Amino acid sequence: MSDPTYTPPKVWTWDAASGGKFANINRPVAGATHDKALPTGKHPLQLYSLATPNGVKVTMMLEELLEAGYSEAEYDAFLINIMEGEQFSSGFVKVNPNSKIPAMVDHSTTPPTRLFESGSILLYLADKFSAFIPKDAAKRAECMNWLFWQMGSAPLLGGGFGHFYAYAPEKYEYAINRYTMEIKRQLDVLNQHLAEHQYMCGDEYTIADIAIWPWYGALVKGKLYDAGEFIDAASYTHVIRWADMINKRPAAKRGRMVNRTWGEPHDQLHERHDASDFETKTQDKLV
Amino acid sequence: MSDPTYTPPKVWTWDAASGGKFANINRPVAGATHDKALPTGKHPLQLYSLATPNGVKVTMMLEELLEAGYSEAEYDAFLINIMEGEQFSSGFVKVNPNSKIPAMVDHSTTPPTRLFESGSILLYLADKFSAFIPKDAAKRAECMNWLFWQMGSAPLLGGGFGHFYAYAPEKYEYAINRYTMEIKRQLDVLNQHLAEHQYMCGDEYTIADIAIWPWYGALVKGKLYDAGEFIDAASYTHVIRWADMINKRPAAKRGRMVNRTWGEPHDQLHERHDASDFETKTQDKLV
Repeated sequence: MSDPTYTPPKVWTWDAASGGKFANINRPVAGATHDKALPTGKHPLQLYSLATPNGVKVTMMLEELLEAGYSEAEYDAFLINIMEGEQFSSGFVKVNPNSKIPAMVDHSTTPPTRLFESGSILLYLADKFSAFIPKDAAKRAECMNWLFWQMGSAPLLGGGFGHFYAYAPEKYEYAINRYTMEIKRQLDVLNQHLAEHQYMCGDEYTIADIAIWPWYGALVKGKLYDAGEFIDAASYTHVIRWADMINKRPAAKRGRMVNRTWGEPHDQLHERHDASDFETKTQDKLV
Repeated sequence: MSDPTYTPPKVWTWDAASGGKFANINRPVAGATHDKALPTGKHPLQLYSLATPNGVKVTMMLEELLEAGYSEAEYDAFLINIMEGEQFSSGFVKVNPNSKIPAMVDHSTTPPTRLFESGSILLYLADKFSAFIPKDAAKRAECMNWLFWQMGSAPLLGGGFGHFYAYAPEKYEYAINRYTMEIKRQLDVLNQHLAEHQYMCGDEYTIADIAIWPWYGALVKGKLYDAGEFIDAASYTHVIRWADMINKRPAAKRGRMVNRTWGEPHDQLHERHDASDFETKTQDKLV
């Protein structure tokens, strides 16, 4: 139930105290808050990220490219601690004026190319290496349909359901109902599609799978917002079949560890600068 | 203020009565509700849509292509009345299993290619005609950054702010504050960028502009959710400069009229099957 006396003011003003969790890093303005350059490593690709679902998309893709033998996909992954506001440094804002992870710079071009938005980074890498994207025009179109589906759908999962179910300071029944209905609808879209297709775009593992898995694969396995029982995750059997299949890929396991700062210590690789960085990690606990 | 006694149940169940406006067309499941084929017209491209911001993106793009002389971009635009549930017909679901407008079929390929998600349709058309997308690789990457930015940002505008500010059955202060802060941040991202760039990706008018304008151009002109004063739209002067510039384009004016079923009668072209269909419309009132 809402407060029946609330009427929005004529002009909204910012009350910094009203934001709940993440209130300290959510602002109604854009741009840098402090002057600090980004570090740069030795490889062509420089990633600035964190192992949230959007961050994991990119590290999964990079590890798949390396697994497939594309050595030009070697990368340095630097940690951006978003709870500390590192996404508001002048260096980060220059790469991504939207101040969200992941952001990447490709130093193999002159001048270097800035990339932001996980979907844009996935598509850039897929086209750069002609990998994990169908070569056939019709299949490519279908792959793009699902890549964009993920980009337009997940904000209602992360910025809607996840916020109100897990993070908001109180349990708002109307908002929880609204977004639960929507994410169950989204899961059913996937479930019906994956009942008839091995991967999102047919027989090939593509960037559409890589984009969808860190969000909806985690959700259906009960690993996002501790919401598995609430949304009856077990009923989406075809999504679970697909998620389990991807979960077994070595590149997916490695990708999930990069820039991870929570969970078990052996699953955390805070920064990644070389393939050997994984050797001290077990790689088999994070399933 | 929320009801302090609310505790989410262990397993969520659907209460169809709790959805506010649009409750009758929001469901927690996907798929067709009734058996009905889609109509097909005479042109290569068949569009099934409505003149919401996501729908307008595509009609703007098609009208720009025709304006630029690409006659293969000729299209039939059929109306999908989403309040009547036409997006749940078996024919529509076959084209877009996500049951959202816009959806399109390209009959110039064998077999025909299905397209859904406005961003996917824009990119498909841009690549098909090599138009409204930069040919230079670095500029193309920047264009994709902003296209994906729009796809990931607008759900928090339409599915967050718009819903809670304009459509929810009650005014929920926390949710309105949350999403207002976010859309003001998004507008400031655009405003700072457009202070230094003529269009989103530099000097060229591209699909990034076409994707962003129907949402953020309308918002900053006070034409979305009647929220101009509330968000202090007048302060985003660079976005307004850019929105006004696009607003003057003949293709943008025509694109906004297609599949429109509200506003002044002379601004509504419910279906579009031929360029001459616009002749009975004034085209100059919708600014």
